[in-house]
Amino acid sequence: MTSAMHYLQVARQCEIAELESLQRTSALVDLIGQLIHALQKERGLCTVYLTGRCEPTTLSAQVQECERRAMQACAGFDALKVPAQGARLFSRIAYVLQGLQALPALRAHIQARQKTPESSAAAFTKLVAGLLAVVFEAADGAADPGISRLLVALFHFMQGKEFAGQERAAGVAAFGAGGEQRQQHWLHLIAAQERCFQVFVEFAPPSLLPLWRAEDAALERLRRVGCTAPADVEPDADMRQTWFDVATRRMEGLHAIETQLAAELLHQCECRIAEAREPLPAADASADFFDTSPGPTTSLGPQLNRSVLELVQEQSQRLQAMQAELEATRATLQERKLVERAKGVLMARRHLSESDAHKLLRQTAMNQGRKLAEVAEAVLAMADLLPPAPI
Amino acid sequence: MTSAMHYLQVARQCEIAELESLQRTSALVDLIGQLIHALQKERGLCTVYLTGRCEPTTLSAQVQECERRAMQACAGFDALKVPAQGARLFSRIAYVLQGLQALPALRAHIQARQKTPESSAAAFTKLVAGLLAVVFEAADGAADPGISRLLVALFHFMQGKEFAGQERAAGVAAFGAGGEQRQQHWLHLIAAQERCFQVFVEFAPPSLLPLWRAEDAALERLRRVGCTAPADVEPDADMRQTWFDVATRRMEGLHAIETQLAAELLHQCECRIAEAREPLPAADASADFFDTSPGPTTSLGPQLNRSVLELVQEQSQRLQAMQAELEATRATLQERKLVERAKGVLMARRHLSESDAHKLLRQTAMNQGRKLAEVAEAVLAMADLLPPAPI
Repeated sequence: MTSAMHYLQVARQCEIAELESLQRTSALVDLIGQLIHALQKERGLCTVYLTGRCEPTTLSAQVQECERRAMQACAGFDALKVPAQGARLFSRIAYVLQGLQALPALRAHIQARQKTPESSAAAFTKLVAGLLAVVFEAADGAADPGISRLLVALFHFMQGKEFAGQERAAGVAAFGAGGEQRQQHWLHLIAAQERCFQVFVEFAPPSLLPLWRAEDAALERLRRVGCTAPADVEPDADMRQTWFDVATRRMEGLHAIETQLAAELLHQCECRIAEAREPLPAADASADFFDTSPGPTTSLGPQLNRSVLELVQEQSQRLQAMQAELEATRATLQERKLVERAKGVLMARRHLSESDAHKLLRQTAMNQGRKLAEVAEAVLAMADLLPPAPI
Repeated sequence: MTSAMHYLQVARQCEIAELESLQRTSALVDLIGQLIHALQKERGLCTVYLTGRCEPTTLSAQVQECERRAMQACAGFDALKVPAQGARLFSRIAYVLQGLQALPALRAHIQARQKTPESSAAAFTKLVAGLLAVVFEAADGAADPGISRLLVALFHFMQGKEFAGQERAAGVAAFGAGGEQRQQHWLHLIAAQERCFQVFVEFAPPSLLPLWRAEDAALERLRRVGCTAPADVEPDADMRQTWFDVATRRMEGLHAIETQLAAELLHQCECRIAEAREPLPAADASADFFDTSPGPTTSLGPQLNRSVLELVQEQSQRLQAMQAELEATRATLQERKLVERAKGVLMARRHLSESDAHKLLRQTAMNQGRKLAEVAEAVLAMADLLPPAPI
């Protein structure tokens, strides 16, 4: 009979393997953050280019930066281990690759001014959403509660920063052409990023919070001006450039925090792996399993040697507590899952594109004064009542 | 750049690896079911032996059967793959091994009549609980919703059967010596097994339900007689034997269903693996990722070749739907997790043995007319207020 001590060691090996897998995923998340940041800037520059003014050399330099970051991210995909990382993660990666491969054609269309500022921005937004979905799966699949908290903080920060990036492009478009619908969209992006940053503040390690500064006077002034300008006022090109520069400065600030958070994540992985590699304490096998006196885990007096039974029970309780903490952290990801599933239902049943499905959910939530997650839940509950898509 | 198609294949490989891991776990669950059945019978025979009458040869034959089943289960433990199965499962196995190694000493005590019928039964019950915890982890760790449903059905069936086995021993003790406390315990065991079998009926495949017969007239009559006999009535030895035989016949019937359910589980694993091994359909990479027309998954007309993008989106939606279904099934396991964690808190903070912690939870639930899970939740919420254990 293989000894209990052997399986204690095996359980430890499983923990280490899971942590190493998290380490690889965390390294990938860092690379994805860099790629997203580059794509966000390219999106902003393309909007500026399509609304009138942008040095072609500035844009082409950014395209090169994006290509470099994309190659690094692809190397990160290839570095993942099969099957440790799970089917959903690889499925998301397959989606992202389709987007990366379609980028050159998109850029040619933009270059030739065959895109509106909105459709250009929407294309980049779609690709960034795919990349964020990879980060989401990494957060959802993490098996260590501390690292899971960091990934939840980082995912929401990245999602918030992405709304801030969309806001940059939306602001450029609004200062460029005005219009109430554009202003509404802008206000939505402000609200959406604030919700994300709240989750970040809740889950981020306290040591990183001093870096976070929610207030930005210049930004707020420009937001007020842009969101309240009457529709018939002539757009102000200088204002547009000022907005782009302020929003870009903000994005760089957010990116610095994101990079620190990713570094903290990798550091935590290393710490946890080192902890898990500590040898198990010496133990003797004397304690009787069928002894009915009070549980041995409560009698950790000054004795030097614990029994194997005590070690087994300690490990088991530790793993149980970890799982409970993990489930509590993952519950934070629930809202997004509901929204994703509801979008899937609407796409399949009502013949909608992904972004139209999202808009419909958001619009319904705004009209009914309900949370997005509530509307998503209602859609899922009613899924069978929705008419099937005509072929 | 590695192609999207490659990562679609990789996601499939991950699914297959998870299913193969489930297949190994399922084979183990089957072996554990056989071992538990043998231990349950040994527990019953020991109670009969300690209350007066049992051929020593009958008991020693059962001990040999248990040893044989234990060796098979240990071979099943060794056949698991590291780290595919997860730390918690191996931690539970380490606990069980401590119990199996302590069995010979327990048997010597029983042989020498140094145990009461209750303490003998409690020892076997503790070991069986440890084995059921392994099955629980297998159910909780399953990543395929169909197989997870079967494992949830099987776990609850095994847990229900275990309460039925405890009832067999409790009935022998009650017919042997009477007493109101024993009758109360007996009634508790009847209620507990009924809750478990309800979950089984909810999650079992319809094809297996005709095997399940909740009613048993002879059993019900003996239950009534045993649970209502006044405390001062002389115990009836013949009645005790009749009860043991009827309860044993019932256990054999339950075991037959359990075996079928385990076979169905293995069959499902094979089917799902075969499905996942089907080659991916041919696809061309032509569809444009940035095309904003309605989602391609809705336009599956009569065309032969789908685009890679369609395959990617189909796989992604299928995996998302699977995860949602999985989460719904796993929610059924939540009650037990709460109770396990609350027991851990009580053991650590109030210096209680596992069975005393369980009794305290159960007693509190009965006194307050609340569900066990509710009391467990309250204990967890109040954990920090409980005094720490004195050393």
